[in-house]
Amino acid sequence: MTATGSRVPAPTSLEQIREKARRLRIHSLRMTTAAGSGHPTSCLSAAELVAATFFHAMKFDRANPNSLASDRFVLSKGHAAPILYAALAEAGVFPISRLMTLRQFSSELEGHPTPLVPGVDAATGSLGQGLSVGAGLALGARLERSNARVYVLLGDGEMAEGNIWEAAAFAASRQLDNLVVLADVNALGQSSRTMYRHDCDVYRRKFESQGWAAEVIDGHDMAAVVDALDRAQAARGKPYAIIARTEKGHGISFLADQDNWHGKPLSAEQLEKALAEIGPALAIAKDDGRSCARTSLPVPADFPTPAAPEYKIGQMVASREAYGTGLRKLAAVHPKVYALDADVKNSTFSETLEKAFPDRLIQSYIAEQNLVGVAVGMAAQGLVPFAASFACFLSRAYDQVRMAAISRSNINLCGSHCGVSIGEDGPSQMGLEDLAMFRAIPGATVLYPADAVCTERLTAEAARRPGICYLRTTRPKTPVLYAADEKFPVPGLKVLRQSAGDRLTVIAAGMTLYEALNAGDQLQAKGTSIRVIDLYCVKPLDVAALAANVRATGGRLITVEDHYAEGGLGEGVIAALCDAGVPLTAVRRLAVDRVPHSGPANELLDAFGISARHIVAATNQLLQTK
Amino acid sequence: MTATGSRVPAPTSLEQIREKARRLRIHSLRMTTAAGSGHPTSCLSAAELVAATFFHAMKFDRANPNSLASDRFVLSKGHAAPILYAALAEAGVFPISRLMTLRQFSSELEGHPTPLVPGVDAATGSLGQGLSVGAGLALGARLERSNARVYVLLGDGEMAEGNIWEAAAFAASRQLDNLVVLADVNALGQSSRTMYRHDCDVYRRKFESQGWAAEVIDGHDMAAVVDALDRAQAARGKPYAIIARTEKGHGISFLADQDNWHGKPLSAEQLEKALAEIGPALAIAKDDGRSCARTSLPVPADFPTPAAPEYKIGQMVASREAYGTGLRKLAAVHPKVYALDADVKNSTFSETLEKAFPDRLIQSYIAEQNLVGVAVGMAAQGLVPFAASFACFLSRAYDQVRMAAISRSNINLCGSHCGVSIGEDGPSQMGLEDLAMFRAIPGATVLYPADAVCTERLTAEAARRPGICYLRTTRPKTPVLYAADEKFPVPGLKVLRQSAGDRLTVIAAGMTLYEALNAGDQLQAKGTSIRVIDLYCVKPLDVAALAANVRATGGRLITVEDHYAEGGLGEGVIAALCDAGVPLTAVRRLAVDRVPHSGPANELLDAFGISARHIVAATNQLLQTK
Repeated sequence: MTATGSRVPAPTSLEQIREKARRLRIHSLRMTTAAGSGHPTSCLSAAELVAATFFHAMKFDRANPNSLASDRFVLSKGHAAPILYAALAEAGVFPISRLMTLRQFSSELEGHPTPLVPGVDAATGSLGQGLSVGAGLALGARLERSNARVYVLLGDGEMAEGNIWEAAAFAASRQLDNLVVLADVNALGQSSRTMYRHDCDVYRRKFESQGWAAEVIDGHDMAAVVDALDRAQAARGKPYAIIARTEKGHGISFLADQDNWHGKPLSAEQLEKALAEIGPALAIAKDDGRSCARTSLPVPADFPTPAAPEYKIGQMVASREAYGTGLRKLAAVHPKVYALDADVKNSTFSETLEKAFPDRLIQSYIAEQNLVGVAVGMAAQGLVPFAASFACFLSRAYDQVRMAAISRSNINLCGSHCGVSIGEDGPSQMGLEDLAMFRAIPGATVLYPADAVCTERLTAEAARRPGICYLRTTRPKTPVLYAADEKFPVPGLKVLRQSAGDRLTVIAAGMTLYEALNAGDQLQAKGTSIRVIDLYCVKPLDVAALAANVRATGGRLITVEDHYAEGGLGEGVIAALCDAGVPLTAVRRLAVDRVPHSGPANELLDAFGISARHIVAATNQLLQTK
Repeated sequence: MTATGSRVPAPTSLEQIREKARRLRIHSLRMTTAAGSGHPTSCLSAAELVAATFFHAMKFDRANPNSLASDRFVLSKGHAAPILYAALAEAGVFPISRLMTLRQFSSELEGHPTPLVPGVDAATGSLGQGLSVGAGLALGARLERSNARVYVLLGDGEMAEGNIWEAAAFAASRQLDNLVVLADVNALGQSSRTMYRHDCDVYRRKFESQGWAAEVIDGHDMAAVVDALDRAQAARGKPYAIIARTEKGHGISFLADQDNWHGKPLSAEQLEKALAEIGPALAIAKDDGRSCARTSLPVPADFPTPAAPEYKIGQMVASREAYGTGLRKLAAVHPKVYALDADVKNSTFSETLEKAFPDRLIQSYIAEQNLVGVAVGMAAQGLVPFAASFACFLSRAYDQVRMAAISRSNINLCGSHCGVSIGEDGPSQMGLEDLAMFRAIPGATVLYPADAVCTERLTAEAARRPGICYLRTTRPKTPVLYAADEKFPVPGLKVLRQSAGDRLTVIAAGMTLYEALNAGDQLQAKGTSIRVIDLYCVKPLDVAALAANVRATGGRLITVEDHYAEGGLGEGVIAALCDAGVPLTAVRRLAVDRVPHSGPANELLDAFGISARHIVAATNQLLQTK
């Protein structure tokens, strides 16, 4: 794919690029003083790097800077947002007059970048995540046959984050020579000097040790920056790191390399003094108040319905296996679907997709933070990533998931091996807080299928849902419950046992659904009818259906989950019912209440209070007391 | 401090160490076959490394292997647990007969190591965390004037985890020459070959780029391993990495360097064949069933009450400032207290401690995973770490916190800048899921003080609490509410507005408490009395006091929190009240319900539905409908 249309930049001389850097400095200082907060000195150290990247190296469509054909820029050091906004405005992406709305509630120009701003692909501001997003963008460009390049500006402080080195190793392993790092080594962190201060060779050696080409330059020498960018463009087979020695606050005598200026705007008088040092003033028109926010963030594309599940009711299939099968069938009808693996593809069954489509599994090795960041970058290129690991190990990437939500990113995550039902491997391998994690992600969909049919259907559904979509799967094999043509709307639930005389509702999901069904059978044999619900969609909740069922059983309710009690489906259901005004007359939550232990799955379900025996006991207790 | 008592090892010849390696192999194979699960091949690659470390390099008290004077061993590749247990048993820490109980529900020898096993300091099994724990142990030894050394066994697969490189940089920055890495490069991950296969020089260069001394050896040549360990002991000024080329499954013809043997025990016939290859059998006594579990995990030490708060009621003080002051006062009476910072000490106010006690702030730079891992290691040396960052950035270390809970570690974490009340910096900097995160940690204490007096008192209380203790602090200054002598029991709450005619209870904490008090005043002025509760302790809950107050106001309840609705204090309170059988007649949860935005704090509290205006409106609505 080759770029077309109104593209940046026009050819410019070194002098013209230097003037751009000067303008970026002026904007950054003025914006932050007007806002009364922000990080001007972190912008000043990057002025030459940003100006040369935007006005010499990058080619992009100013009307569509997030398109596949456009080169991309990721500001990993997100607190330097003003200079990014200034560069986008100077490039003509939106009016320069808009800059002075920085950090206002009504402005899309927030304190740290989000994709509401055209030209931004992912939210940054939690440091050390941008290189993974950049690697995902670069990989996405490669997979989609675009020649576009990706530039990532790193701060030196954030290079202490392990995520950077996960991303660096990944990018080298994929030979992403369309990826360039600009490291702004200004030697000053927020609260003190950085670990290596101005020893730029340390960073060069670190990148080289990861398989990158790297060089050290003076980040304020525009000719040096431009030459380095040219060398980066010419590099083949490896990603390229430009390690730039810079000064925080560079260009202003009383800011340059000074302590205690992090995150502080200049006063009006200081600003005047600073601008006098920078040279001729800029005349900027008054903003007309029109937002430049992106109106069309990526939305999931439509695709044909995948092949139907092919199971017999009662057949023993683990939901994790069905995830792999569902993903393979989805990929067969949806060419943009990719699996991402953290070296557990034979446990999560992502390998089922790989066996059918070897090029569509991205091996990300054991590095979950990068796994999620790469998925965000790929999604920003219009791909549909499904990243999977053990549920518990997705906690490693919780900050990246949090940021993906702020990015309004359409990524799908599958966590296998949830709960104590994994058995002998013990608590370090048990996902017991993943429902709490993902429920607390705004706009997320949280799916927890019990059987293979539901799992296949929800895997396809995930690709249709905007935002973060989380699928929770189980290790042991369990019986297929549903016919192949069963539909699983989101939100939704299934009532699996009901009669007019139901005394109580049990709400379960995944492994505990089988315990609940078993308990229902035991109770029925003794003459007590209970209602059993498969809550396959934990978020959003179908509150109307929950309310109707719980009301029908006199407000008596048991929830049971292979998860800790806090933030799980029990709390979610009960709080939603209370909000909806459903009188709850007798409630019991069954959940794991302490750190579990290794042992056989069945022993653990019983020892930690979520087996059929406990459901029966809780039912009898609740019915006696009422 | 010098070691005393019954110490390991007795002087041994190379031949004797080789025999130990042989025995470790036999145990690992037998244990996993008996258990029917586990990772024997991951043990076999490490047999020489583990044998030489335990029986040549390490000196430790077999009766007290977790003492300050003892050298420590951290099995970062936790799935090789059987060989660690075998080494501890061979060293005399517990009977060899115990090994065959591996992975049984009744056994302390779980699938992955936890500190229930004597000689284990931290749970492992979530890969890539052990080096941070090792660095914390090594730093703790240094701070406590012990000459003990720390050995960390890494797998090659887990070296893709960024946490490893955060820890490596940190250890070098602290010149921890009492820390040794043994990297078991067997080139086989779980599902495929590792990224660098047997290219050991890549790992050497990575460690060297981080400031380590490093060398590559043949990990199955016992003389080479012993010599490398001797060189590591002699090294000064830098931590030392021994990169060992090994074979997964080494020593058994049909396992060595074979795919598809990860996490698989041998069948009885395969075991017989394997043992025949290893040489003379071992006679092992039958286990007498006595647990070897540690009966005394570290508990927080007692200390004098710190100096009282010195504020005037109504004085404007941010709770984050009070945290710093409280920490300084605590450190003055408790010599084992240390602050850990991720380059935000001037935001979290950890710097207040540093100003008084410059050596008692550990600068961990921007690397939150390592921050928490180091704290776990320090706690295992009897120190009392307080690690702080922005609340949102602790999500970066959620997996490490999860593992710290499995480690039964006594660490304290402070998250500042919670909620939308931080204002203009925007959503990437707002902690809005931290209550959900920490509530879902088993045994954790979650504290959320609103004013400075409460914050100082709870900071000291945190040092007395076992397990993970989380303090949530707020950015803006707020009025002091409590007298200096006020007590804040845990669990507990404060009723700040009450009268006999209260129509409804509002439960708030932190920033929203002030909104609730404001709302209460507005409503009172119009003749409506409401009860206002400061829920400074979010976990555990004082359910009896909550129930009494909510019952007293007719089961009418509003919760309001600067946090997402899911997993927050509202869900927790409502679910607990339902469990306790308190009839809730009208409930409303006010919480942030979508990704927020940059803007002034007051505008945001109002825009996202948690200001006094919303509390007043919700009150009027609930009282009308009932």
